[in-house]
Amino acid sequence: MGSPMAMSGAGGPARGVTRSDVARYAGVSTAVVSYVVNNGPRPVAATTAARVRDAIAVLGYQPNANARALKLGTAGLLGLLVPDTGNPFFAEYALAIEQAATQRGLALLIANSGSDLGVEATLLTDLANRQLDGLIVAGAGGPPVDSTLSGVTAVTPTVFVDTASPVPGYRTVGADKHAGALQAAQHLVEVHGHDNVALLMGRGARHATDERETGWRDALRALDVERGEVAYATFTRHGGYVAGQHLLALRPRPTAVFASSDLLGMGLLRAAHEAGLSIPDDLAIVSFDGTNQAEYCWPPLTTIRQPIQEMAAAAVAAIFDQAAPAHQLFPVSLLARRSCGCSLPDSDLKPDRAGSNPAPPTRHPRKSRKRP
Amino acid sequence: MGSPMAMSGAGGPARGVTRSDVARYAGVSTAVVSYVVNNGPRPVAATTAARVRDAIAVLGYQPNANARALKLGTAGLLGLLVPDTGNPFFAEYALAIEQAATQRGLALLIANSGSDLGVEATLLTDLANRQLDGLIVAGAGGPPVDSTLSGVTAVTPTVFVDTASPVPGYRTVGADKHAGALQAAQHLVEVHGHDNVALLMGRGARHATDERETGWRDALRALDVERGEVAYATFTRHGGYVAGQHLLALRPRPTAVFASSDLLGMGLLRAAHEAGLSIPDDLAIVSFDGTNQAEYCWPPLTTIRQPIQEMAAAAVAAIFDQAAPAHQLFPVSLLARRSCGCSLPDSDLKPDRAGSNPAPPTRHPRKSRKRP
Repeated sequence: MGSPMAMSGAGGPARGVTRSDVARYAGVSTAVVSYVVNNGPRPVAATTAARVRDAIAVLGYQPNANARALKLGTAGLLGLLVPDTGNPFFAEYALAIEQAATQRGLALLIANSGSDLGVEATLLTDLANRQLDGLIVAGAGGPPVDSTLSGVTAVTPTVFVDTASPVPGYRTVGADKHAGALQAAQHLVEVHGHDNVALLMGRGARHATDERETGWRDALRALDVERGEVAYATFTRHGGYVAGQHLLALRPRPTAVFASSDLLGMGLLRAAHEAGLSIPDDLAIVSFDGTNQAEYCWPPLTTIRQPIQEMAAAAVAAIFDQAAPAHQLFPVSLLARRSCGCSLPDSDLKPDRAGSNPAPPTRHPRKSRKRP
Repeated sequence: MGSPMAMSGAGGPARGVTRSDVARYAGVSTAVVSYVVNNGPRPVAATTAARVRDAIAVLGYQPNANARALKLGTAGLLGLLVPDTGNPFFAEYALAIEQAATQRGLALLIANSGSDLGVEATLLTDLANRQLDGLIVAGAGGPPVDSTLSGVTAVTPTVFVDTASPVPGYRTVGADKHAGALQAAQHLVEVHGHDNVALLMGRGARHATDERETGWRDALRALDVERGEVAYATFTRHGGYVAGQHLLALRPRPTAVFASSDLLGMGLLRAAHEAGLSIPDDLAIVSFDGTNQAEYCWPPLTTIRQPIQEMAAAAVAAIFDQAAPAHQLFPVSLLARRSCGCSLPDSDLKPDRAGSNPAPPTRHPRKSRKRP
């Protein structure tokens, strides 16, 4: 059992090595080996534990998580199925779910559907066969999540995330997208005086109407704003770029856009820069998600922050907590930055993550508006 | 066995349901149930397979991946340990590894060390206990990867990635960072005429000297460029922002910066914008990685592209292929965009992912240089 490379053959590492071999090599009882492997139930002195771990490494012993899983009735595994971790929102969400899982001693199995319903169905079948402790799903069709997934999720406790609406028969966790869209549109109209506020709307594979669209429509109606075009986009940077070019080619050109995700906002920013527009003077932007990257765009994106850490913790807890509410809806908040016309004094720039700056921004209505 | 919510209790779904129950319910033999669950070895008609899957869902049968793993000697699981999937480079790398794993019928278990050596050690112990088919590791210490991890990786075939140098006893996959840094510095000096080219260098937990630093130094020496300051940063956007502020406060101020990752380049961009500098006229930037996000910065970042898809495929293949070379070093290439002073005519903008545009850029030397 020399180098690891020598052991990576078709047969894999030696499977004949037993717990007794490890115990003999380390000069301890088999019970002590078990305590080290399972982190308990009894404590083991650090030097003894180190000797056992050395023996495990030298002999190539596999404590065999699968055998433990059969015995304990759990694999210590949480599954996560999302559309695309290339989207910073899902990347941050996945990271937060991993952290919450780790706190419970669970490892995270991750699967991307690529927003493809067929791929999603195949992955769900695979995940259902793995005797996971739980499964967290952000649907490929985009919110609201489709309940037709029940066939395969029936065998594993499942929580749907990224859905602002309940899914009958399932636990769900989401952010209040309707309220977020309302806030975004109201901010652009009431604080910055816009009267032509477009919507750049991402769409999942099912093309379902999202609460961000109804929220934006409700805000414009309530505020008597007549001009409000919609462009639909695939949920990618390039999707936001193309749909952004479409919006910027309209006449009269919208003076403000609510982008339904940070990812789309980044695509719109590129389209606006390439068109030679000044942001926020020629075009004000508010996006949605509150990812770290939004703060590092230029200008930094004003965005509706979803509480990713809190939602991730709630989703993992809902797998195990029988008393958790069927649907948990989290409030969102507007992070005012430069892209909408709000500006932060430089002294307020903090060495924190996006979303952590509580300082009230200096808000000012637009003074001039350049027309093409 | 009603709704999934009713089954998410401490005991989990019914474990008493057997393959025979499913066979009886679906009206097929137990062998057919096995074929459907294991995707073979014999084909099953689509309608029959659908009937079996319905039965599995209705009865809450768990095919029990753990029992299969014991029998087959594999869990069908690949582990991936990376510093931080909040970094777009590792997010894209993880996605590409997942795709390569899926093609081999493996699911991906993902773990983030947060660039913390202690967390990394704990995670490796956990992963080694899970009888994975293989493990891919990007070290928390940053490249070059440390070979002291051998104790725990001895039980699982392991490949180290994101390392431009070999690690004795292990298979390794990396990009040619030294050549990339050379290209970046040469481009700034020879094409754009800079004579004060700073380095914004990210550092892992071990503070080891990286090939991007030696490559940059070698280029400046070969080109007789005397002015070249270095600022070290943690591998985060904020780290790039703070170290960028430091570089921009130097007098004489560097006229060009090579940032050792796209993430750091994004932080530097923010610092430069806030300082009122025009890019590339006041400050030219070349970064490293070639992530999709780099193309959506403003101005778009010129970056040294690592072949992420190819490296991910090679890393997964190296787990299983005994004939794979011990160390695989991939070439990198410069993607010229606006941040260095190169510009692409608008007609060359393609609806592709970053890194896929083969059109040669229009390169022009700097004509004027504003001094503070």
